[in-house]
Amino acid sequence: MHTTAPDAFTRRVASAVVYQIFPERFAIGGGLSSQQKLAGDAYAVANAGLRDWDDSPQVQPWGQQFFGGDLDGITDKLDYLVDLGITGVYLTPVFAAPSNHKYDATDFFTIDPMFGGEDALKRLIEALHQRGMQLTLDAVLNHVSDQHPWFVAAKAGDAALRDWFSFADDGSHQAWQDFGFMPELNLANAAVRDRLYRQPDSLVQHWLARGIDNWRFDVAQDVGLPVAREMRRIVGQRFPDALLLGELNGFAGSWLGDTSQPGYHGMMNYWYRTALLAWLGGEIDGVQMNHAIRDARSAYGLNGLLCSWNMLSSHDTPRLITTLGSVARAQLAMAAQFTLPGIPLVYYGEEIGMEGGADPDCRRTMRWNPSQWNVQQRDWVKRLITIRQANPALQYGEVTVLGDRLPGNALVFLRHTHQAGQAALVVINLAEQALQLRLLLPYSHWYDGVPLRDALGRAPDCKVQAGSVVIDVPAGSAAIYQAFEPYQHYTFFKPRNQD
Amino acid sequence: MHTTAPDAFTRRVASAVVYQIFPERFAIGGGLSSQQKLAGDAYAVANAGLRDWDDSPQVQPWGQQFFGGDLDGITDKLDYLVDLGITGVYLTPVFAAPSNHKYDATDFFTIDPMFGGEDALKRLIEALHQRGMQLTLDAVLNHVSDQHPWFVAAKAGDAALRDWFSFADDGSHQAWQDFGFMPELNLANAAVRDRLYRQPDSLVQHWLARGIDNWRFDVAQDVGLPVAREMRRIVGQRFPDALLLGELNGFAGSWLGDTSQPGYHGMMNYWYRTALLAWLGGEIDGVQMNHAIRDARSAYGLNGLLCSWNMLSSHDTPRLITTLGSVARAQLAMAAQFTLPGIPLVYYGEEIGMEGGADPDCRRTMRWNPSQWNVQQRDWVKRLITIRQANPALQYGEVTVLGDRLPGNALVFLRHTHQAGQAALVVINLAEQALQLRLLLPYSHWYDGVPLRDALGRAPDCKVQAGSVVIDVPAGSAAIYQAFEPYQHYTFFKPRNQD
Repeated sequence: MHTTAPDAFTRRVASAVVYQIFPERFAIGGGLSSQQKLAGDAYAVANAGLRDWDDSPQVQPWGQQFFGGDLDGITDKLDYLVDLGITGVYLTPVFAAPSNHKYDATDFFTIDPMFGGEDALKRLIEALHQRGMQLTLDAVLNHVSDQHPWFVAAKAGDAALRDWFSFADDGSHQAWQDFGFMPELNLANAAVRDRLYRQPDSLVQHWLARGIDNWRFDVAQDVGLPVAREMRRIVGQRFPDALLLGELNGFAGSWLGDTSQPGYHGMMNYWYRTALLAWLGGEIDGVQMNHAIRDARSAYGLNGLLCSWNMLSSHDTPRLITTLGSVARAQLAMAAQFTLPGIPLVYYGEEIGMEGGADPDCRRTMRWNPSQWNVQQRDWVKRLITIRQANPALQYGEVTVLGDRLPGNALVFLRHTHQAGQAALVVINLAEQALQLRLLLPYSHWYDGVPLRDALGRAPDCKVQAGSVVIDVPAGSAAIYQAFEPYQHYTFFKPRNQD
Repeated sequence: MHTTAPDAFTRRVASAVVYQIFPERFAIGGGLSSQQKLAGDAYAVANAGLRDWDDSPQVQPWGQQFFGGDLDGITDKLDYLVDLGITGVYLTPVFAAPSNHKYDATDFFTIDPMFGGEDALKRLIEALHQRGMQLTLDAVLNHVSDQHPWFVAAKAGDAALRDWFSFADDGSHQAWQDFGFMPELNLANAAVRDRLYRQPDSLVQHWLARGIDNWRFDVAQDVGLPVAREMRRIVGQRFPDALLLGELNGFAGSWLGDTSQPGYHGMMNYWYRTALLAWLGGEIDGVQMNHAIRDARSAYGLNGLLCSWNMLSSHDTPRLITTLGSVARAQLAMAAQFTLPGIPLVYYGEEIGMEGGADPDCRRTMRWNPSQWNVQQRDWVKRLITIRQANPALQYGEVTVLGDRLPGNALVFLRHTHQAGQAALVVINLAEQALQLRLLLPYSHWYDGVPLRDALGRAPDCKVQAGSVVIDVPAGSAAIYQAFEPYQHYTFFKPRNQD
């Protein structure tokens, strides 16, 4: 497969490992307890349920239970993330809103006092940038809370704001999936688009100017393609380094693949998640699994894939181990997450084996006592990050899917850059037997005699034989084969052999 | 899969449902009986076998048995076709010729008196156009009858016409598949091409100027690519709305796929027919069946496929139910015929379940007494037409083949336009078990939560889940899944999300 090498933007972006934080549940700044923190004025709101950090979240409408997590808490824990190998942080919304999740913003231009206000954001940005890390915030462009002043005024008949929403003659309004408390913004209205992303003081540009690095956009399919395209063009002129990423819960080739009219740089790759969890859960076989990667590569384009987040769990889904029922399966899923094209997105706590079912159970507070950690799981994540960060092919290489042509039940693919020999052969064998077979490798830069070694240490070394290799990957196991140079006065991978 | 949207010509053409008529056997105008009609002068020819309408055709050389069908008969029956949902009529040849099938024309510029002459053609065109329907006629450019005056004169040594054919030194002539009575025209001769299609008064242009809409060209592989290309260019300039369609009995990518040198707009898709009948007859498995569609899409191009006729039977083949041995199998074949890209071509009588083996048995007279109709078959055809005509994706959408990656024995494909949500998932399950599985859908515009319903009413409703769907299609059954909007104040498919 011949492709254009990804550009510098994509190579930089794709080299990241991002950590998703639900700020209310990660850490409290300054060493405060929940009780101390929740005594603050910010929590003096109706129906607030105030909890201790070690409690479990309970089902409660309107997201009104609080544990006290905030931005300074994240700042305090950055060295923990650095030790893990994380290079970027993504926060679910932090703007003023009554709930704990803040998806019901009432003011996009204020950081919620519960999270420490704008000063805390400044401290976080500074601490991240000192460590060479990036910050991604979360914007909802499709709808606002029905308590947002824009909607309150519009509903009351404000002439200027009425057309910011869509009211029917009977006074009812368009609302996200018929949830009346989430009225949809009228994105056909130029004034709305101005305020959200077109003007220098718009939501999107305001916070980029204040030093955040990237945006994640909620319900991107509702926001729609024209907004994505216009935003990419306008915002990209002023902030060419910012990654604009859509939440697209499904296949999303249309949003990424058309390079003549680019939409988002990337997406939350729910498609991978659907495929991997269905495969690891026994719902689909290896053929559909391998085709899922092939289809994504074909429709998203390599750049679109590389700039997307490979996510396996989030604040909207059960946690990984809970979904798959075993640490072993979760580790296979993570092996794919860190080797498939795209940016690994680790939901906070997955690296220590936290469990949890659907919302709110997946939003338990972070465990900071190492005695509660699954150390084997943490070692696995650290190891995957180390392997990935040492091999550019795993960061921004092309992907060639091979597993759909093989017997058994394995996801098999090759990653490779244009630099001769810079490649990795990834095998995730879900069968109950070892995958032992000769595999033809349609790749031009692992030459006859090149030795390969599994970076995960489970499969024996093997050697390339005239375009093929005999692999031997144990049952229920993953291997990441990489080449090494066995000679002292000879190199297989001469720099002149750039692809 | 990203493609250019089909142009307006293709969208119009591909929205048709065409009905093939063998004029001698469909209906007699003015309510005449065969006996009354066949008493006319036109039938006072040597060797004519005169039949009653309710007789069966018998094997008889030279196509010399007559039942009396004619163009006024078709005109009389147009409301029957309108009721069925038909939008166009294709007639096998109608030009002056001694046989009942008229493929042995002696004059391309005269409508055969048996069929009512040119006045009857005018009445038919007018009646069709009043109903918004189109007429396609059948032209043989490769050869003529050895009784055609051109050949008679050439054989006698006419200096001007000698080079219209290919005579060897011994006086023998090139003839279609060595049938001496069908001498091949010398298409290298510019005068021949002038007379057939290049001049304003040529065969092809003459009848388009008289009001017919489209042409079907016999034995197109013999006529060849250069003629197809020159004809498309020259005729297209004067008649840009006319569909030029080749009879290509097999795979035909070369004739359609090269858009830099377009040949025919479309073809009679015998390739589909071969695959479907072999699959439904147990000769090939689902993998080859799915690949047949994928190969056609790849080689024909979407426009080439969309402008082709999906035919399952014709005057040259046994009838569908006779071939497949059961109405149930015939109905699965028709489900494919009406949902795969291309124009459904219904051979007269298939919609009422007529049976018949090879020629002449497949050319029995049309049954007009409803007591002889298979009502279940007619309902099936009407239902398929209704479903197709309500969903533009089934008319002119892209096709994405999915069945080759699935276990079992099913033809599975998605049709989808550039309009968000305008799609259909078609499953034809030939296995003896229900097809129950999670199917990953590499399509960007059926979003998470979109509900799907089988328009044929056999499979239960299901819901899209993050790019996948769990389908459940009974054994030996077809399903056409389409999305619907479940909310009152919210739409999944926002018009702004054009692909």
